[in-house]
Amino acid sequence: MEKNIIVIGGDGFCGWPTSLHLSRGGYNVTIVDNLSRRRIDEELGAKSLTPIASMEDRLTAWKEVSGNTIRFENIDASQQFDALHALLEELKPEAVVHFGEQRAAPYSMRGLTEKRYTVDNNINATHNILAAIAALDLDTHVVHLGTMGVYGYDGDGLEIPEGYQKVMVAGDDNVIYQREILYPTNPGSVYHMTKSMDQLLFQFYAKNDQIRVTDLHQGIVWGTQTPETKLDDRLINRFDYDGDYGTVLNRFLVQAAVGHPLTVHGTGGQTRAFIHIRDTVRCIRLAIENPPAKGDRVVIRNQMTETHRVRDLAKLVASTNGAQVAMVDNPRKEAAENDLRVSNASFIALGLKPTTLEEGLLEETVEIAERYAERFDSATVAAASIWTKEQHAGVVTKEALIAGQVQPAA
Amino acid sequence: MEKNIIVIGGDGFCGWPTSLHLSRGGYNVTIVDNLSRRRIDEELGAKSLTPIASMEDRLTAWKEVSGNTIRFENIDASQQFDALHALLEELKPEAVVHFGEQRAAPYSMRGLTEKRYTVDNNINATHNILAAIAALDLDTHVVHLGTMGVYGYDGDGLEIPEGYQKVMVAGDDNVIYQREILYPTNPGSVYHMTKSMDQLLFQFYAKNDQIRVTDLHQGIVWGTQTPETKLDDRLINRFDYDGDYGTVLNRFLVQAAVGHPLTVHGTGGQTRAFIHIRDTVRCIRLAIENPPAKGDRVVIRNQMTETHRVRDLAKLVASTNGAQVAMVDNPRKEAAENDLRVSNASFIALGLKPTTLEEGLLEETVEIAERYAERFDSATVAAASIWTKEQHAGVVTKEALIAGQVQPAA
Ligand SMILES: NC(=O)c1ccc[n+]([C@@H]2O[C@H](COP(=O)([O-])OP(=O)(O)OC[C@H]3O[C@@H](n4cnc5c(N)ncnc54)[C@H](O)[C@@H]3O)[C@@H](O)[C@H]2O)c1
Ligand SMILES: NC(=O)c1ccc[n+]([C@@H]2O[C@H](COP(=O)([O-])OP(=O)(O)OC[C@H]3O[C@@H](n4cnc5c(N)ncnc54)[C@H](O)[C@@H]3O)[C@@H](O)[C@H]2O)c1
Repeated sequence: MEKNIIVIGGDGFCGWPTSLHLSRGGYNVTIVDNLSRRRIDEELGAKSLTPIASMEDRLTAWKEVSGNTIRFENIDASQQFDALHALLEELKPEAVVHFGEQRAAPYSMRGLTEKRYTVDNNINATHNILAAIAALDLDTHVVHLGTMGVYGYDGDGLEIPEGYQKVMVAGDDNVIYQREILYPTNPGSVYHMTKSMDQLLFQFYAKNDQIRVTDLHQGIVWGTQTPETKLDDRLINRFDYDGDYGTVLNRFLVQAAVGHPLTVHGTGGQTRAFIHIRDTVRCIRLAIENPPAKGDRVVIRNQMTETHRVRDLAKLVASTNGAQVAMVDNPRKEAAENDLRVSNASFIALGLKPTTLEEGLLEETVEIAERYAERFDSATVAAASIWTKEQHAGVVTKEALIAGQVQPAA
Repeated sequence: MEKNIIVIGGDGFCGWPTSLHLSRGGYNVTIVDNLSRRRIDEELGAKSLTPIASMEDRLTAWKEVSGNTIRFENIDASQQFDALHALLEELKPEAVVHFGEQRAAPYSMRGLTEKRYTVDNNINATHNILAAIAALDLDTHVVHLGTMGVYGYDGDGLEIPEGYQKVMVAGDDNVIYQREILYPTNPGSVYHMTKSMDQLLFQFYAKNDQIRVTDLHQGIVWGTQTPETKLDDRLINRFDYDGDYGTVLNRFLVQAAVGHPLTVHGTGGQTRAFIHIRDTVRCIRLAIENPPAKGDRVVIRNQMTETHRVRDLAKLVASTNGAQVAMVDNPRKEAAENDLRVSNASFIALGLKPTTLEEGLLEETVEIAERYAERFDSATVAAASIWTKEQHAGVVTKEALIAGQVQPAA
C-alpha cells in the first residue's frame, strides 16, 4: 500500500516541486493549500516571472505525464481546523510536510496588517497541525520548513550547529555544567520570529506527546525547475522577483536579463546560505525517510549547501552578461558585514550531492530569466517595507526603494 | 498631570488588586478586560470561594472609598485589535501592564479547544499590544506577567538567574566564547509554552522598535487580599480553588477548612516558587517605576519571594488545624522531586520586603478559607486535564481525579 503524505503549502515555490518529487517517488500525495500566496500576489500586483498554471491544470498535467493522481484540498491550516483534523483522521499520513506559512520577511514588515497576519497565520497553522496529530494519536512525522534566518546573522566566528548548541554554565559551586540547548535565536523580522516561535511548539509537542518532528533550517532557495517540473510547461514552478517574495539571487537574475543594474543593499557584505530547489526536494525526501524515533527530541537539520556574500553573488551574475552593480541604502536592520559558517553535516551524511551555484546559474539565466524576460514588471521590484521607525523618518528614501532595492528574503 | 496606565486583564486575580494599588498610588488607571475569565468560571461550573462583585459594582465601590475613578473597557486584546489600538492612541499610556492571558496550565491541557484557545489568545494578545505600540510610535513601557514555570523544573543545582544565562561556547578554533542568552526554556504545558513564545515577541520588539519591556517571571501567587481590596466587601479579590485555576496553596487551604484530606500529587517533592498577592502588586509598581532605557534589551525580573516543596506546604497548612495529608498519583508529566534555587536579587535591590508564608498563612485560613467555607463546592476541586496519551490510557483514574487531586497551577 502506498504511504500517504500531506504537503501543506503544496502550491508554493518549494511545496509544488516537492509534491511532484514525492508523487514520482511512490508516495500518495495530498496537497493542502488555501492559495493565500496567489491572493497575496494579486494584492501586491506582483506575479511570478514564469507563467504558473492553476492548481487544476497542474494536477491534470501531472496525471497526464506521470499517471499519478495528486489530491488537492483547499484548506486554511490556520483557520479551518475541523477540515484539517478530518483530513488527518482520514489519511493517517506517514508524514505531514509543512510549508504552509507566510514566508516573506519584507511582507511581514510592511505594516500592522501584515505583521499580525504573519503571526496569526504561522503560529496557528503550526499549532493546529501538532494539536490535531496529538489528539488523534497518530504516528505522523511532521517535517517542517524553518529557516537559517532564525539563527540571526551576528557572525562571531563560531560555526552554526544543526539546531542545538553545546554550552557550559559555571555553577556558583565552581563546577562547570555542560548543557545542549536549542540554539538561542535572534530573528530579524516578524517572519523569522514566527519560525523561532515554531521551534518552541515543536519542542513541547515532541516532549509531551512524543510527536516525531524534523525541523529543516533552510537557506535561501534558488533555481526554478526540478526534473519533474520540467516534464510539461503546465508544471513550471514559480519564480518570484518582487520586493517582498523575490529572493536576492532571483532579483539579480531578472535585473541582469532586462539590463538593469544589480542593486546591492549596503556594502553587500551580508553572507547568506543557499540551496538549489532540486536539492530542497531531495532533502525533504531524505528527511521523511530518516525520521526521529518516537520520543526523541526534535531533529534539526540545516538545509543549505553553500554560503555567499551578496556582493559576490552580484558579481557572479553580472559576469554572465556584463550587467552593472549598484550599491544602495539598506532598508533592513542588519549587520553590514557578517561571516557565516554553517554545519550541514547531517544531509551530507545522508548522501546529498549539492548542486553548486556555478553549475546551475547558466541554466537559470538562459532558461528562466532570459526566456521569460518579456513578463518582467519593473514596478514590483521595489520593496515597500520599512523595518523600523528611524527608517520611516527618512534613512531610506522612497526614491531609493523605487530604484529597485534588493530584499534578500529568506 | 496624572500618568495613564492601562491594565490588561484588570478584572483578574492579580490584575484587580494591581489596578487598585496603582489607582491609590496616583496613576490614572484604565482596565481592559474581556471578562473571559468569568465566562470560563461558568463553563467549568467553578466559582471563586470569595464572592466577587461585578466590574460595575467594583468600580462604584472604589469610587466611594477612594474618590478615584477607574475606567473600564470591555475589549478582547487578542481579537479586537482596532479598539485596543484606538485606546492606546487616545491614552498614550506611560505603561501597559499585561495580565490578559489564559493562565491555567491544567485548563490549557484539557483538550483541543482549550489548547488552541490558549495559544491563539495569548500569542495574539501579546503581539497586538506590541505591534500597536510600535505602529503608534508610543514610548509606552510594557510590563508583562510571565511565569517562573517557563524555566522548567529540571532542577540541576544551578541557581535560576533573572531571565538571562551566562554561558560559554567552545569554538572550533579552541577559543572559549562568552555569551549571555535568554534562559533556555523547558515549558511543561501549553500555557507555559505560550509564555516562552511571548519572550521571543518581546525580544524582537525591544530590538527592532526599541519598545521598553519588563517581563516578570512570577512564582505562584498566594493570599487573597491587599490593603486596597480590604477597604470594602465589594472590592474583595477572587480565590480560586478549582482543578484548573486553583493554585496548590489555595486548594490545601479549602481542603483544610472543609475537613478534607490535603491531596498531594506524587511524592510532593516538587519545589515551587511563591509570592504573596500584596507583594505582587508592589512589585508591579516597582517595575513600572524602574523601566529599562529605550533601546535596552528586555528587563526580566523574577517575581517570587520564597520556595517550598509541595509536601512541606501541605504539612504547614495541615498543622494549622490538624487536617490529614493524602498522597495521590500525579496527573502531570513532571519530575517527581526537584530542587529550585531562584535569584530574586532585582526586586530585593529595589526595596521589596517579602511577606512570608509563616506571617500570612493564618490570616488566609481565618479570614478567607474558614470565613467562606460554606461556599465550597467539592465538585470543582478535581482537575479534568489529562496531560498525555499514556495518562489517558489509565495511569490516572477518573476516581483519583474526583478524589480531589491538587493541580499546582502557576
Ligand atoms: N523560498 C525560500 O527561499 C525559503 C527559504 C527558507 C525557508 N523557506 C520556508 O519554506 C516554506 C515554503 O516556502 P516557499 O518559498 O515555498 O513559500 P510560498 O509562499 O511559495 O509557499 C507557501 C505556500 O503555503 C500556502 N499557505 C500559507 N499559509 C497557509 C495556510 N494557513 N493554510 C494553507 N496553506 C497556506 C501558500 O498559499 C503557499 O502556496 C516556508 O515555510 C518558508 O518559510 C523558504
Ligand atoms: N496567579 C498566579 O499564581 C500566577 C503566577 C504566575 C504568573 N501569573 C500570570 O499573571 C497574569 C494574571 O494571572 P491571574 O492569576 O490574575 O489570572 P486571571 O485569569 O485571574 O486574570 C486574567 C485576566 O485576563 C483577562 N483576559 C484573558 N484574555 C484576555 C484577552 N484576550 N483580552 C482581555 N482580557 C483578557 C481575563 O478575563 C482575566 O480577568 C497571567 O498572565 C498569569 O500567567 C499568575
